[in-house]
Parts: sequence; C-alpha cells; structure tokens
Amino acid sequence: MMRFAGPFLAVDWGTTNRRCFRIEAGRVTDSASDDRGAAAVTDFAAEAAGLRARLGDLPMLLAGMVGSSIGWRTAPYAPAPAGIPALAAALTWIDARTVIVPGVATARDVMRGEELQLLGAAIAGMAPPDALLCQPGTHSKWARMEAGRIAGFTTAMTGELFALIRSHGLLAAQLGAPAVAGAAFLEGEAEGRRRDLAASLFGIRASGLLGLRDDADAASHASGLLIGAEVAARLAESRADAVHILTDSPLGGLYAAAIEAQGARAILLDSRTAFISGAAALATEIA
Amino acid sequence: MMRFAGPFLAVDWGTTNRRCFRIEAGRVTDSASDDRGAAAVTDFAAEAAGLRARLGDLPMLLAGMVGSSIGWRTAPYAPAPAGIPALAAALTWIDARTVIVPGVATARDVMRGEELQLLGAAIAGMAPPDALLCQPGTHSKWARMEAGRIAGFTTAMTGELFALIRSHGLLAAQLGAPAVAGAAFLEGEAEGRRRDLAASLFGIRASGLLGLRDDADAASHASGLLIGAEVAARLAESRADAVHILTDSPLGGLYAAAIEAQGARAILLDSRTAFISGAAALATEIA
Repeated sequence: MMRFAGPFLAVDWGTTNRRCFRIEAGRVTDSASDDRGAAAVTDFAAEAAGLRARLGDLPMLLAGMVGSSIGWRTAPYAPAPAGIPALAAALTWIDARTVIVPGVATARDVMRGEELQLLGAAIAGMAPPDALLCQPGTHSKWARMEAGRIAGFTTAMTGELFALIRSHGLLAAQLGAPAVAGAAFLEGEAEGRRRDLAASLFGIRASGLLGLRDDADAASHASGLLIGAEVAARLAESRADAVHILTDSPLGGLYAAAIEAQGARAILLDSRTAFISGAAALATEIA
Repeated sequence: MMRFAGPFLAVDWGTTNRRCFRIEAGRVTDSASDDRGAAAVTDFAAEAAGLRARLGDLPMLLAGMVGSSIGWRTAPYAPAPAGIPALAAALTWIDARTVIVPGVATARDVMRGEELQLLGAAIAGMAPPDALLCQPGTHSKWARMEAGRIAGFTTAMTGELFALIRSHGLLAAQLGAPAVAGAAFLEGEAEGRRRDLAASLFGIRASGLLGLRDDADAASHASGLLIGAEVAARLAESRADAVHILTDSPLGGLYAAAIEAQGARAILLDSRTAFISGAAALATEIA
C-alpha cells in the first residue's frame, strides 16, 4: 500500500482548535494551527483540501473530535487496552489517503485525540511504558499505561466546572483574575484534597463576605480546589508516586504544583512532541 | 417596650422569594408568599408597607437576604454558637417596629434566614436539642445543633452546581428531565459517595456516548451524584446516625433517599413550621 510510507500530514483536530503537522521521517518540517475546530467546521472535505494546500498534497492522518458525531465521520472506539496496532486495526478511511484514527474506550469512559499523545509519549521514551499520564484540559484525562499501551483511563471535567463557575452563578464576580500557582492556589489545593467540592466552593463566597481573602486570589484558590480534588482522587485510585503530564499550556504547571503538593513527582512533557511521535508510529504501522 | 408582645408579621425574605406570616399567640392567622425576593426589590420600605397593607399594620420581623448587601440594610452576623438570645442581641432596627434578624457566622461560613428555622425546630421539639439538621436548597446548610443552639454549620453549593451543569456546558443537553428518587438517582448516589465529582460527572457524558444509560435518567443520576457526594462528606465529618431535614420541597425527598442509602436515618420536618416557631420565640424574647 505504501500510502503512509513517505511524508504525511497529521492533524490533532479538537472541538475548538486544530494543529496540523507535516511529518517527514519522523520529524516536523512544517505546521499550522488555527481555531477551525470540529465545532466550527461543516465542510470537512474542503477543510482537508485547504490543509493540503497549505502544507502539502500528502496522505493525511486525522485524530480527535474530527472522528466524533460533530466531526467528519463518526469513527469507532478501539477498546482498551490499546496500542498502536489496535488503533491501526480500527481506522476509518475517508478515501485511500485520508484516514481517521479511532478513539479509545473502556467499559465506562471514552477518549478521542489523546490516544496518539499517550502512545507517542511511551514510544518516544518520554514516559516509561508503565506509568500514570495526565493530560490537563477542559476534560482532563488520566491514563494508566501498561507495557506502552493505554490500559485504562478516567476523564475529569474539572476545567469545564471551573469555566462554569467563572462565567455563571454566585462566584463569577469573584473569579475574574487569572489562576496562578502561588500561595492561594496551594491553599485551595490543600482544601480540595478533602474532596468536599460543593462545600469548599461555597467557602469562596463565605470568605469574601467575611473578608478572609482578597478576591484577587479567589480564582487561584478555586482552581486549586478543583485541581486538588481531581489529583487527590486519581492518586488515591492509582497509588502512583509519579505523574507524567502531557501539556502545552500553563495548566500543566498548576497540575504539577498540585501533584507535588500531594507528595508525588510531576514530570512535564510536551504534548506536541508526543502527538508527533504517536502519529509517526501509526503511519509506520500502516505504511 | 412590648413592640412584639402581641400579633406581629414574620417575613422569610430570600433572594428570589419571600413568605410572610401573621403570627398571633404563636399561631399563623394569615400568610402570603410571592416572588418579590431581595434581588427583585429596590424600595424595601414600600414593600414592607405593602405587606402590612395585605396582612395587618403590625410589628415586623425580617429574616434572610433582606439583611444582606442586596437587601434593605446589611445586618451583622451573630457569631456561632448562637441561640435566640444571641440573635436578639444583634438585631438591626429599621424603625421602632421593623427589625432585621442577624445572620449567623462561624469563622468560615455564613447563613442568613436559615437560623430561625434551625432554632425554631429545636424550640418546637421537632428535632432534639443535639442533632444534625440539613436544609436542602441552592446552597444547602448542614447545621450541628448543640443544646438547642447553632454550634456550627457548613454550606454546600450543590443545588447551584446542578443548575449550572443543567443550563450550560457539555451535559446540559442530557439533563432536561426532572430528577426523581428512583433507581437512577440511587445509582448516582452510590457513585457520588466516592466523592470524585469531576470524574463522575464526565461519566454521564461517557455513558451517553457508550449507550449505557438512557438520557431520560441522566438528570436523576446527576442529582444523585451531587447529593450523594454532599451527604457523604457531611456524614463523614459529623458521624451522625440521623439527619433532620428542614424542607418544603421535593428536594427533601431526594436528600432523605441519599441519607438513608448511606445508612443514616432521615427525618423530614416542615421548614415553614420551624420558621414560625423560631420567629415566635424571637418575638417573645424581644417583647
């Protein structure tokens, strides 16, 4: 077949953004990112043609929400445990040189797009083959890797909860400042560890009324609460003593601070590098 | 003074609603409720005159958000532990026959309006003098009563979180049905007990994508998750084996179901009766 034996394009196509890379012999030779996420796009064929016009008329590997019900075509999930061969066995071909990567599902959770990063991190040796990996975001993923495969994972909608309380309802007026990994974040993290979220969040309001905390610190405190509760639940479940964080945003630093505060080691990894590694490995598998 | 020795009006004046009672010798002889909550009102003097025109030109006791920064005047908090005498010592007089009842504060939490219900329940013998009382709502209160006084309490913004996920964001489309105390609620409650909220909530989405649960059950499941997590946190903290629930809404039944599922006894009490008992006791105290 040899469709993916040479240079190809790999697209990490999320709900609101996408990043596209031209990969040659495992290295990125050109790239583009924009906000043409799956939710903003209707004519996916035209979008794919546009990406080819920008980055080269090459075979194209598509990962992420482009394979969901809001995407180009609904691709199936590969069942966990899943490695590169499991993804290769469940591809959805749009045409002979355009292919959607499957998401991965367990009996109770789903992912789309994160799988190439996770497998790529193991393949590139960025994380050990047996490790706990975290991908912070609106819906953050915590994946248990075993022998370099995705053995199981849990999604937490921590980022979405933060966005909701920030935009609507009682606390919104207090949460305008950016969240930073300082003292207020760590104080929130310590409280969040108690996993008593609905009460801890109201405490932000009460602290404001009682004059206990400057509202300038409230967003950092709230972020600490939410991330602290998430980290505590995942560390309690996994009993891991280290977490590898795949990220390309400041959110990675907040997660690292919370993980270290709870006594585990946090290792920050570049999610872009991991994605490219995973995409290259899958291209090789189906070359 | 004798201002409150005879018939009087007691108003439970919340953010969005108010209930007003004419009380004579401890009994309600007339009442009115409407949606003229503190957030909807600007001229509180005119509103008070209107209530007197409807229910009698009598001394008036005002409790709730009417004493907050969005109310008629900001009334101080009485510090916990607080009984009727502590409230009587911290009244805010508008004029010689119009008085705002203080809220109650601990070092880290605040209430306004709930205090009369809590103290009234103890005074009327609806709950024992030492008990754990719960007031479900947008911001539910859990109060530890000792010797008939409010010794401490915790507020959980469970109801607000439910409203937020129902109106905005990823889960909103799944949560249109009413929450009822059936199998889906109890399944959610059992999950919520794990106090892993951000992950459990994403599970609603994943269950939808994987076809594991009918969306008609999703709102009940979400309600069970949130209430289950709240109840678990409060029961773990208090080690109480019974909870007295002050309520006038179906939410009381959902809390009772979650409390019983977690092995404690739930006793439903009428919050209106408790409020009237508390208001009558305070009127007697300041007569």
